[in-house]
Amino acid sequence: MSATASTDALAHRYALEPLRGLGGLRVEPQERPEPGPGQVLVRVRAASLNRRDLMLLDGTYPIPATPGVVPLSDGVGDVVAVGPGVTLAAVGDRVTGTYFRRWVAGPQRLADVREQYGANHDGWLARYVLLAEESVVHVPEHLTDAEAASLTCAGVAAWAAVTKPTPPGPGETLLTVGSGTVALFAVQFARAHGARVVSVTSSPERAKRLRGLGADAVVDRSETPDWASAVRELTGGNGVEHVVDAVGLPTLPKSVAAAAYNARITLVGAFPATEPPVDPFAGNYVSIRRIAVGSRTDFEAMNRTLAAHRLRPVVDQEFPFEAAPEAYRYFRDGTPFGKVVVTCDGSPAQRST
Amino acid sequence: MSATASTDALAHRYALEPLRGLGGLRVEPQERPEPGPGQVLVRVRAASLNRRDLMLLDGTYPIPATPGVVPLSDGVGDVVAVGPGVTLAAVGDRVTGTYFRRWVAGPQRLADVREQYGANHDGWLARYVLLAEESVVHVPEHLTDAEAASLTCAGVAAWAAVTKPTPPGPGETLLTVGSGTVALFAVQFARAHGARVVSVTSSPERAKRLRGLGADAVVDRSETPDWASAVRELTGGNGVEHVVDAVGLPTLPKSVAAAAYNARITLVGAFPATEPPVDPFAGNYVSIRRIAVGSRTDFEAMNRTLAAHRLRPVVDQEFPFEAAPEAYRYFRDGTPFGKVVVTCDGSPAQRST
Amino acid sequence: MSATASTDALAHRYALEPLRGLGGLRVEPQERPEPGPGQVLVRVRAASLNRRDLMLLDGTYPIPATPGVVPLSDGVGDVVAVGPGVTLAAVGDRVTGTYFRRWVAGPQRLADVREQYGANHDGWLARYVLLAEESVVHVPEHLTDAEAASLTCAGVAAWAAVTKPTPPGPGETLLTVGSGTVALFAVQFARAHGARVVSVTSSPERAKRLRGLGADAVVDRSETPDWASAVRELTGGNGVEHVVDAVGLPTLPKSVAAAAYNARITLVGAFPATEPPVDPFAGNYVSIRRIAVGSRTDFEAMNRTLAAHRLRPVVDQEFPFEAAPEAYRYFRDGTPFGKVVVTCDGSPAQRST
Amino acid sequence: MSATASTDALAHRYALEPLRGLGGLRVEPQERPEPGPGQVLVRVRAASLNRRDLMLLDGTYPIPATPGVVPLSDGVGDVVAVGPGVTLAAVGDRVTGTYFRRWVAGPQRLADVREQYGANHDGWLARYVLLAEESVVHVPEHLTDAEAASLTCAGVAAWAAVTKPTPPGPGETLLTVGSGTVALFAVQFARAHGARVVSVTSSPERAKRLRGLGADAVVDRSETPDWASAVRELTGGNGVEHVVDAVGLPTLPKSVAAAAYNARITLVGAFPATEPPVDPFAGNYVSIRRIAVGSRTDFEAMNRTLAAHRLRPVVDQEFPFEAAPEAYRYFRDGTPFGKVVVTCDGSPAQRST
Repeated sequence: MSATASTDALAHRYALEPLRGLGGLRVEPQERPEPGPGQVLVRVRAASLNRRDLMLLDGTYPIPATPGVVPLSDGVGDVVAVGPGVTLAAVGDRVTGTYFRRWVAGPQRLADVREQYGANHDGWLARYVLLAEESVVHVPEHLTDAEAASLTCAGVAAWAAVTKPTPPGPGETLLTVGSGTVALFAVQFARAHGARVVSVTSSPERAKRLRGLGADAVVDRSETPDWASAVRELTGGNGVEHVVDAVGLPTLPKSVAAAAYNARITLVGAFPATEPPVDPFAGNYVSIRRIAVGSRTDFEAMNRTLAAHRLRPVVDQEFPFEAAPEAYRYFRDGTPFGKVVVTCDGSPAQRST
Repeated sequence: MSATASTDALAHRYALEPLRGLGGLRVEPQERPEPGPGQVLVRVRAASLNRRDLMLLDGTYPIPATPGVVPLSDGVGDVVAVGPGVTLAAVGDRVTGTYFRRWVAGPQRLADVREQYGANHDGWLARYVLLAEESVVHVPEHLTDAEAASLTCAGVAAWAAVTKPTPPGPGETLLTVGSGTVALFAVQFARAHGARVVSVTSSPERAKRLRGLGADAVVDRSETPDWASAVRELTGGNGVEHVVDAVGLPTLPKSVAAAAYNARITLVGAFPATEPPVDPFAGNYVSIRRIAVGSRTDFEAMNRTLAAHRLRPVVDQEFPFEAAPEAYRYFRDGTPFGKVVVTCDGSPAQRST
Repeated sequence: MSATASTDALAHRYALEPLRGLGGLRVEPQERPEPGPGQVLVRVRAASLNRRDLMLLDGTYPIPATPGVVPLSDGVGDVVAVGPGVTLAAVGDRVTGTYFRRWVAGPQRLADVREQYGANHDGWLARYVLLAEESVVHVPEHLTDAEAASLTCAGVAAWAAVTKPTPPGPGETLLTVGSGTVALFAVQFARAHGARVVSVTSSPERAKRLRGLGADAVVDRSETPDWASAVRELTGGNGVEHVVDAVGLPTLPKSVAAAAYNARITLVGAFPATEPPVDPFAGNYVSIRRIAVGSRTDFEAMNRTLAAHRLRPVVDQEFPFEAAPEAYRYFRDGTPFGKVVVTCDGSPAQRST
Repeated sequence: MSATASTDALAHRYALEPLRGLGGLRVEPQERPEPGPGQVLVRVRAASLNRRDLMLLDGTYPIPATPGVVPLSDGVGDVVAVGPGVTLAAVGDRVTGTYFRRWVAGPQRLADVREQYGANHDGWLARYVLLAEESVVHVPEHLTDAEAASLTCAGVAAWAAVTKPTPPGPGETLLTVGSGTVALFAVQFARAHGARVVSVTSSPERAKRLRGLGADAVVDRSETPDWASAVRELTGGNGVEHVVDAVGLPTLPKSVAAAAYNARITLVGAFPATEPPVDPFAGNYVSIRRIAVGSRTDFEAMNRTLAAHRLRPVVDQEFPFEAAPEAYRYFRDGTPFGKVVVTCDGSPAQRST
């Protein structure tokens, strides 16, 4: 835990230049920062990617990336120093951080969503990250580093989608659409609440893995293009009470078609535009909402559930620090099932010591 | 209250033949029905019109009208007889009825919405109406007959739109869009909950009347086509926390534009299709739901508020029973501000006695 | 299903005379009733006992038993006839009934709780029971008759205690106090919601069975008189977020002592007076509420969960119809773990045919 | 706003020594503190007293006062300096502070309630107070200093009591018991939500003032000792849906007797022990909870309502800084109707300059 000056001198971080594709990721030396008042310095063990990180690279995310910012909102590491006045974390704690710098609890406000790690505050793809004290979240002990680095964005977004304003009941069915990491977490969280889960996915292999994760039934849309009807049949014709549509507008019409009267359909996060526009209310009485991740309080509630049920995020693959651009490429062009993680222990700085 | 056989012989009712326009309304003699088990016989005093009644005439309502059905879901009258086993109403009670025949409380189910008075069960534009016991609702004493005949559809829909799942708080702003009767009720109900109300309407005269009804601010879209921006300014740039959009898809994009981050937008009832379809979620994080009236429990909660606050529905004009087609025409082609009511006391049957 | 006149002539029912102890239960012939309007006639297969049935016998229940009433609120049977206007049940359905005659949904009203089967409306300890249509509840198919006869009182009360106004979350702990049937159901329902369950009971044998039912931890108060401290330790010192105290005032002080800051403690049903009175708020910031069973809507939600999770009520022992007084005695003086059921198929009337 | 070194040198504060009665309040010079990281320095304009301040003096409050602490949780002043990293307040802001140092939002945790201004963190009866950034709350502009100094404890406690978990509806009745400042705020807040308010108080003069504040009906218990029955009559025999009992255990039995079936009764804050203990659940099905003030989020929601409805706290009397012990005596021995305020502008330090 004693980070000497020499290892500090050899630490590195990635910096992001938007609109240059993967070429916009450059590695550069990182000096060990000093935590200011109310700040917590974390030495990173691992970080992970989300769709928003590709959108930040491409300039399609609603908030532009600050040129030179350290990317990634998700990561885990050890507290190595705390600034004056800090009481919410201590040196030696294994921690992760919130997506938004300031949203502690309660209703989300526009001001809360504009300050994001990995977008306009330096994120986790580095040797060190400086967090505001209120952004620090302690991770469940039973998780590996790669798993603990997988919670912040997709995990909390899925938690909020499944549980707020009220969770599904043990006699209800929740449909997940997509097999990105938000959908995988949603399967786990809906099951932890005792709900029945139906998942729509795109291949027999993914269908098998979703069943392994707890889905009670899976519809493979490669075999069943009219999956909305198939889902209705699985619910005796009534449709599902809840939908977590982690794809977005392209699938929304079918999600609505699979939904029960007065169902709740949740769209998660930022997504690319669709054309032509859809008209989900044309013949349907449903509630559709679009949400953006969750608060620190949501994060902590999720962690209590992860701990109580010994749940583990699905990790697809880990890349070493120096191969971060390859991790981005695999995440963009491959078909990962679970999180794509970059380990930071084996960073160039570390190796050379 | 003593309905002799002779007056019964002279009673009349309207019967609706769909797809014939106003010509589809024919008047015919009505025999006094006998209430069966669990049924309540009401002698009608007044009834009122809603947009759905025009749609039933035109065949554009989601549920087709049964040919020959007595139209109108809204009305008031006196209980003149009750069938075996009835305990929820007694002869002499002044009552109205629910929109749906069976939805007592709790979440709405598809089966609940298919059975409607004035559509596939005989409604109120008649001398007598037979209600299922569970459809009977007692009306607040302080209301006139015309007012009490104005609650069932627009009143309860506005109540559900304003108050469910949670009402607006006294520090929040609710926007009403449209100046049909749903919007007028919404102004009153939001004010009764202590919320600030902003209304969008289409003429200076209507603006003045909405202010008289309690709206804190009114934007006249004939003068301010970009009313969404005007509404945002009225809320210090934040947008409103709640919208009751009683127009529907055509105004939805502007309603979304006037709404705060994470606002709740409620579309009320059936509305004509729009072209081209709108994409309300393109750049916005809001919750949009579409609702259909409310349950008997909602109706009773609304009535307690009407009574406690001495609220009165806005009645625009009353027509005699024999002029019901004129009432339809005025409702369709005129610009009423408030309910259009048909009084049934002065019916042809009555007059001839 | 073909109930001939001769078997009808030989049907029997029990009638209850209060304040005579078990001697107040007399068996008498029962004619097959005719269902009136809105009524459903059920031929009983099985019935079960609850603490309230002993209190009705003793005159200690808040509502006095009507002399001669057929006892028991819980039972299951087949619909053999329906009265005019009935649409919610059909001949051949296997059904049970609600505890209160009229509480369909929504908030409970005082008027709702005064009309109870087995107290002032004839109950299930008979060949036939006549139910109001709105009291009929269809039972999950996977349950045996004895299990299906065990839901109405203890099951629904436990459901309401665990789930209302909001269920425990999968990261929270719920404590059950007592090992009567309400507590057993509460263990199952809390587990179905993903909550951790701690139970307090009175013997190693019961502790073992509670664990078998799903309790994560059990404290045996015969070995650990200071069970409140033991429960706190099991929650890392914080106390439990939820308590279902199925004993009542005698255990309330310890339940409060085992509870977390701002916990929710639910007392279930009628219970004998305690002396001296307790003062649960002296040093504690908790919420304590006392509830009485639940509505038909609660019952149906519970059934959906029973079906989805294939849950089964715990049945301790079954007695034949003619041994109903022995069932009462065993329930009062024995130490059953689970429901005490009276089967009605093998009734004297049946045997003699 | 320019605090020169000379005035700083002459600034004063009160320090509290517990268990010495009013003699435990001594005035002493105060150096102008330097705000550390995340801290905000406020020059006080006014402060006000609450029952807890007397209990802290007497040692009867659940948390002991740190010897030498500056008393009072309620006050208002100007931000004159901010420490490094502060973004939630700026020099020149007129602000007040939260009761608890750390409770921002969400469920209250035991750890949150142990850190309180005026108990174990220096409070407002001084020239300067140092607040943690997260404790700072901006006050509604329309309030005078005395009014703005009256919100923190009684105001927020009343807000939480009236509005959480759900506010009373416009068709419901809320009963306030007591005429301390919590009760006065509760009258205003219930009215702002459109609820009907019935108040119980102890003299004709207070009854008149409660009516002036908005109570729809007032029962004077000096004239009507059986006030519970009187309140029931005022609600047509049903009892009230909500009670805010700001007295505590001594009045709880009558509050329960005045309450409707399944009513919600809220006990507010710390109160002296009662003897003999009461047994509120003996024959009643109600929900009773005891709460402790509220979070910063509650405070801000209250402020939005104060601003939207132009509500003003009731101020009984203002005392100059040097007469603070007299303010305590008047608050303890007099019968104030409204807040007792100490103005800090005219402090000894100020006068002598």
